[in-house]
Amino acid sequence: MSVSAAALDVTTMRDRLDRLRARAADAGVVAVVITPGSDLRYLLGVGGSSFERLTAFVVPTDRAVAPVLVSPALEFAGLGHLPLEAVGVEVRTWVDGEDAHALALAGLAAGPVAVSDMTPALHLLQLRDAGATEQRLAGPVLRELRMRKDPVELAELRAAGAAIDRVHARVGEWLRPGRTEAQVAADIAAAIVEEGHAAADFVIVGSGPNGASPHHSVSERVIERGDVVVVDIGGPLPSGYNSDSTRTYAVGAPREPDVAEAYAALQAAQQAAVDAVRRGVTCESVDAAARSVLEEAGLAHHFIHRTGHGIGLDVHEEPYIVTGNDLVLEPGMTFSIEPGVYLAGRWGARIEDIVAVTSDGVERYNTRPHDLAIL
Amino acid sequence: MSVSAAALDVTTMRDRLDRLRARAADAGVVAVVITPGSDLRYLLGVGGSSFERLTAFVVPTDRAVAPVLVSPALEFAGLGHLPLEAVGVEVRTWVDGEDAHALALAGLAAGPVAVSDMTPALHLLQLRDAGATEQRLAGPVLRELRMRKDPVELAELRAAGAAIDRVHARVGEWLRPGRTEAQVAADIAAAIVEEGHAAADFVIVGSGPNGASPHHSVSERVIERGDVVVVDIGGPLPSGYNSDSTRTYAVGAPREPDVAEAYAALQAAQQAAVDAVRRGVTCESVDAAARSVLEEAGLAHHFIHRTGHGIGLDVHEEPYIVTGNDLVLEPGMTFSIEPGVYLAGRWGARIEDIVAVTSDGVERYNTRPHDLAIL
Repeated sequence: MSVSAAALDVTTMRDRLDRLRARAADAGVVAVVITPGSDLRYLLGVGGSSFERLTAFVVPTDRAVAPVLVSPALEFAGLGHLPLEAVGVEVRTWVDGEDAHALALAGLAAGPVAVSDMTPALHLLQLRDAGATEQRLAGPVLRELRMRKDPVELAELRAAGAAIDRVHARVGEWLRPGRTEAQVAADIAAAIVEEGHAAADFVIVGSGPNGASPHHSVSERVIERGDVVVVDIGGPLPSGYNSDSTRTYAVGAPREPDVAEAYAALQAAQQAAVDAVRRGVTCESVDAAARSVLEEAGLAHHFIHRTGHGIGLDVHEEPYIVTGNDLVLEPGMTFSIEPGVYLAGRWGARIEDIVAVTSDGVERYNTRPHDLAIL
Repeated sequence: MSVSAAALDVTTMRDRLDRLRARAADAGVVAVVITPGSDLRYLLGVGGSSFERLTAFVVPTDRAVAPVLVSPALEFAGLGHLPLEAVGVEVRTWVDGEDAHALALAGLAAGPVAVSDMTPALHLLQLRDAGATEQRLAGPVLRELRMRKDPVELAELRAAGAAIDRVHARVGEWLRPGRTEAQVAADIAAAIVEEGHAAADFVIVGSGPNGASPHHSVSERVIERGDVVVVDIGGPLPSGYNSDSTRTYAVGAPREPDVAEAYAALQAAQQAAVDAVRRGVTCESVDAAARSVLEEAGLAHHFIHRTGHGIGLDVHEEPYIVTGNDLVLEPGMTFSIEPGVYLAGRWGARIEDIVAVTSDGVERYNTRPHDLAIL
């Protein structure tokens, strides 16, 4: 089911377009070509949907040339409500049989073109054959815009955090011995929608040994008393901004003897990483803050992934909170802090909050208790 | 939420791989590179999920060189159950910091490479920079395989048709005056899952004037007595094979005076197109069969889209039932027959069945009554 568009006002659309053109000019391309997905949603407020028929937003860096929105005529109804004229966007619709890729490139100066990271090969290679032979990724240009959220975006992400917190508050209703992970996940998925999301994008219920695989989703495993269970859930609000939060539950007293001690270290690691977040520090320093607590506890080798990922219109986007990333945090950046410990074949735990860098520190968008929740 | 994989047996995997290599050799490429999506699911039984980290199945046309499955080490758990060794597939996992794109191409002969149509620019351009400079679309190669369904695939599509028919049988429970399209759609979406789909992929509820826009999804419009309502719904089974069926409902006696006559012509057009389906005829002849009935009724200009699209692991795939497509139908091809009439600003109607070409005719996979369903 398609999700209703969150309207962007004309000022915001113009501002984002202006900043895109400036960044694209710095990058030395003659245009940025954006096909359906979160980049399009960032610029126009709608993500588009077509795969086989080309929809493309072509933004020349030369400000004397108008941006062009290319759309199949049949699908333009979904875009017709946008204030395109007010923003100065030219519309070019096409019907089956026309060369949509040539239409998209008509009027552009010769030179390299940046294409959005999610553009499928189907269109990328047809754009190449239509004349855009020198192609680069638009990701580096767009991430500079998208990773600095404006107040409206921050409000959406805060609301998404509150919505997924309401779901976590209800997990005890469903997570009970004798039920399968899949049954619990189905109830959680319904609640994700009930609490205001447009869809349940992902529901991980990793019980017992399944919790030790960070990428486990759900299975037919029956929850047993004594299980430790990782519940990692989220989805987009109707605006497209995503939630993503993990809490770890115990179904009665944990069976495994090392849970209490290891969980305490994990909780301290997550707190240390959140405390490390502020403007001016690097992404990798935040990762190191979590990792060093687990190292002291002798658990570093059980923490086998990065500490976090940016979040916004995509669930995973810049900035990544990972060793080697010397990007410096700025106010308006939003990302997860989600260290975990994974004891192969036995149990796992993870604690994940979305946080935002503020002018004077950090704000958590997920505020459910961080203790191991014993049900 | 990820969908559990439909296991492919070793014989099927080998057979599909063999046919892919033969077709790819004919196409003159040294390898086919397949990233997550329906092409991967067709070949391995799992679709994969990662966007930012490369998962790729690299199939050289030279049979002396083993196919390679490249996967992030962290995500390989989701692929580890596959009988890769039995099929002769080499596994190469990688961790953050390694050059996954170079890893994917290592050992390939020089020459053009075909890349799956849905491969995102993010990976396509990095594969190019890692040495695969001559890139073509793999779509033409893969469609030759995927548009001819084997008996297991046909059984899945038949089951998908029966599942969505069960949902249509219940539409009268929810489609009532005073409710919004969005409320009706939410109930239908829940039923799509209840009836055995992995997800409700799309739910169109186009009431009154909204029915006149073929690509309308849902809105806050309140259903009124006398409305004609287009309900076009579907989703994937857990195996990945999709349903897609449209019926048109009237909420009490239709308000508009021309409904009965126009709907009768539409119903005759849909029947004529289904009757025209058999091995040896062209796709465009099936389209023409529907169109000519509507032309005789003076309604041809209200039928503003193609007659149908192929269906399988994608909702829209080859063969397209459209003017200009001289592809000849063969047993095992499956596609929609879905003519519609759209009276701008007033009402619309569409009737859609999935059909399969059989050795001696055609089989409908949707068998709900085709009359205008008056609720």
